[in-house]
Amino acid sequence: MFVNTEKDYVVATYLVHGHYNFYKKAQEIAVGLTVGTWTDLPQVRKEQMIPHLGKVIEVKSLNNKSDEIPKALLKIGYPIVNMNPDIPSILTTVFGKLSMDGQIKLMDLQLPDSLLTEFPGPRFGIDGIRRMIGVHNRPLLMSIFKQCIGLPLHELEKEYHNQVDGQVDLVKDDEIFFRDDYAPALKRIAAFEKYNQQQQENTGKRVLYGVNLTGPVTQLVEKAKQFSKAGASCLLLNVVPYGFDVLHRIAADPDVNVPIIAHPAFTGSFYPSPYYGLSAPLLIGKLMRLSGADIVLFPSPYGSVAMPKEEALNIANLLQSPNSIHRSAFPTPSAGIHPGLVPTIIRDFGDNIIINAGGGIHGHPQGTTAGGKAFMDVIQATISGQTLAQAADNSAELRSAIDKWGAL
Amino acid sequence: MFVNTEKDYVVATYLVHGHYNFYKKAQEIAVGLTVGTWTDLPQVRKEQMIPHLGKVIEVKSLNNKSDEIPKALLKIGYPIVNMNPDIPSILTTVFGKLSMDGQIKLMDLQLPDSLLTEFPGPRFGIDGIRRMIGVHNRPLLMSIFKQCIGLPLHELEKEYHNQVDGQVDLVKDDEIFFRDDYAPALKRIAAFEKYNQQQQENTGKRVLYGVNLTGPVTQLVEKAKQFSKAGASCLLLNVVPYGFDVLHRIAADPDVNVPIIAHPAFTGSFYPSPYYGLSAPLLIGKLMRLSGADIVLFPSPYGSVAMPKEEALNIANLLQSPNSIHRSAFPTPSAGIHPGLVPTIIRDFGDNIIINAGGGIHGHPQGTTAGGKAFMDVIQATISGQTLAQAADNSAELRSAIDKWGAL
Repeated sequence: MFVNTEKDYVVATYLVHGHYNFYKKAQEIAVGLTVGTWTDLPQVRKEQMIPHLGKVIEVKSLNNKSDEIPKALLKIGYPIVNMNPDIPSILTTVFGKLSMDGQIKLMDLQLPDSLLTEFPGPRFGIDGIRRMIGVHNRPLLMSIFKQCIGLPLHELEKEYHNQVDGQVDLVKDDEIFFRDDYAPALKRIAAFEKYNQQQQENTGKRVLYGVNLTGPVTQLVEKAKQFSKAGASCLLLNVVPYGFDVLHRIAADPDVNVPIIAHPAFTGSFYPSPYYGLSAPLLIGKLMRLSGADIVLFPSPYGSVAMPKEEALNIANLLQSPNSIHRSAFPTPSAGIHPGLVPTIIRDFGDNIIINAGGGIHGHPQGTTAGGKAFMDVIQATISGQTLAQAADNSAELRSAIDKWGAL
Repeated sequence: MFVNTEKDYVVATYLVHGHYNFYKKAQEIAVGLTVGTWTDLPQVRKEQMIPHLGKVIEVKSLNNKSDEIPKALLKIGYPIVNMNPDIPSILTTVFGKLSMDGQIKLMDLQLPDSLLTEFPGPRFGIDGIRRMIGVHNRPLLMSIFKQCIGLPLHELEKEYHNQVDGQVDLVKDDEIFFRDDYAPALKRIAAFEKYNQQQQENTGKRVLYGVNLTGPVTQLVEKAKQFSKAGASCLLLNVVPYGFDVLHRIAADPDVNVPIIAHPAFTGSFYPSPYYGLSAPLLIGKLMRLSGADIVLFPSPYGSVAMPKEEALNIANLLQSPNSIHRSAFPTPSAGIHPGLVPTIIRDFGDNIIINAGGGIHGHPQGTTAGGKAFMDVIQATISGQTLAQAADNSAELRSAIDKWGAL
């Protein structure tokens, strides 16, 4: 009944809770979500349908205790000939109707190489972004505008300068910056990129500005091209609210010649439940990279908006791990980050990451520029093997930050 | 601090679980997701920011028992001047970062009229579809192709005829029909719409065929126009996998002159958890109608893929309830529907709905055409005030169906 190879299948792993015969459940999924019915089909139709039939790859019961709801991991293979090479088609096939069928969570998707190659992956990736910025030996530092909505261009410009002067490598718009009537995106790009050029002439280091891509989904590719042509150095996209496929199309467009920052806005609607939704590593690690994000933000395990450490590390691993098809994307553990956390972040995530802060920069007792410098000082010191205490001895800005926020 | 009117705000209702000071939590959300900070701002900046500042509208504690995790409903107003008139912008603003912030579920969104008018709503709606089909006094009947993938056009055509001959009002593609190499969409439209014309000449009733809209999100509006121009009578879209905004753009395009069926594929990733995600009535009831779906499928409270009855009724109510801005959309409770359920469905949901079946039509002992007729017989009989037993006395097809699947 089932073909014995997986290279022609998308393999979905589900966590299922419930009083099922799990093998039977797996069989029903494999048939129901591909050819619909099987046992009742006449032989000639069965032969016609074999290439389209799903298959059960593994059923793994997970419970030991009798008082828990039974649970199992089911691995089902879906023939790639049933799908288009895009995320909507894959998600509809493997978790369209099934998402509504009881306590079931989509934990992982494995795509064969022939399908992976149809996705763009990061255009720049970790290496490309390091080359653009000219920094290869330490984590990068990104600053988030504290406030964007309602401010005129000249105030945002001042705020931009303050951030760049603090030695950050990237600055990004606030992700909720949609109505930019007082400071339209093209004007921000012109003003901020001009400052980036001056900065590069002075310091030799290029700073990237992530401008928020907004508007009707039908115009986003065109806008991304327009921004790229206008000299933008980086784009920011709220990927899930707009849909993975538009990220895919932007990343695949040869005229969009800038890296893309993926914001995880709205992903918390999916991943936190143990019973429903999609796992965070699949959603934020795999699908973002596949679709072409160069830099991916996700909740750090430390801050206010926290994620379990193992999950955050899995995301980082899926973004970074080398493979023969797609470039690596920059893991960017975010939310609640302050300078005293930097040694811990680097210990946990390594140095091939972006350290990203908003309040931890702008809230510095001596202001935004000092806030950036405190971060850069602790990053440089940690990479050089110094302890936090040693680093603080050499940096008044870092000392102030630790006095305010402490250390981990 | 807070302006005292809601006509300029999107009001979001959240269900929050946790040991919070809920009023403080609400304040933090209202400030944090709009202007970022408030108390520390200089007076002149405060004045500048007032139009952009969120406000707490209501904080309602829900617990009585001391042994439960505390929970509350928070209502927060977000100034519409912060957002673009599209779903991605609204969802990112009200539930972007916040979705990742603990046990929080977005239960409802209320949009002021000035923002509602920016959304297309259904082009045809219940009345428009009834006019197209020419049936005004009973629930409509929709049949789902049992199997699409891998079948050549002539076999699908035969299956189409069998469905239409069973007196159904609409036929839709299987939502997992992406790779249609053997029977491309334009060829299906040509063949099936030709049969619809013949049928209309014979019976006076027009049948609609919902063709699945697939491919890169950047091409969907163009494809919808192309299908419309080629004579398609109805479109099918897996709305959430592609994103609400592309439904919005298709529905708003004057050249897409056909109704749209919204499939709820993937929505089960959001609504079932009591702690996380979006409520089903918001997601499937409100947002689908707002974005322009004419016909909306959702899990019925009866079948295999079940939804609590109150939730399903809320969805139906949000789709149907008259308002001065948008047409009503057809509620279509789906999954596990067989003829014996029809009196119950009509009792629960009224007769301004679409009854939708796949297995309950194709699995009929005498085949697909008899399966359609069994449904139509019980629909007509129920509307005429007959009991199920009376109806079965007058219809051999219905009797067979009840023998097989029973009644509720």
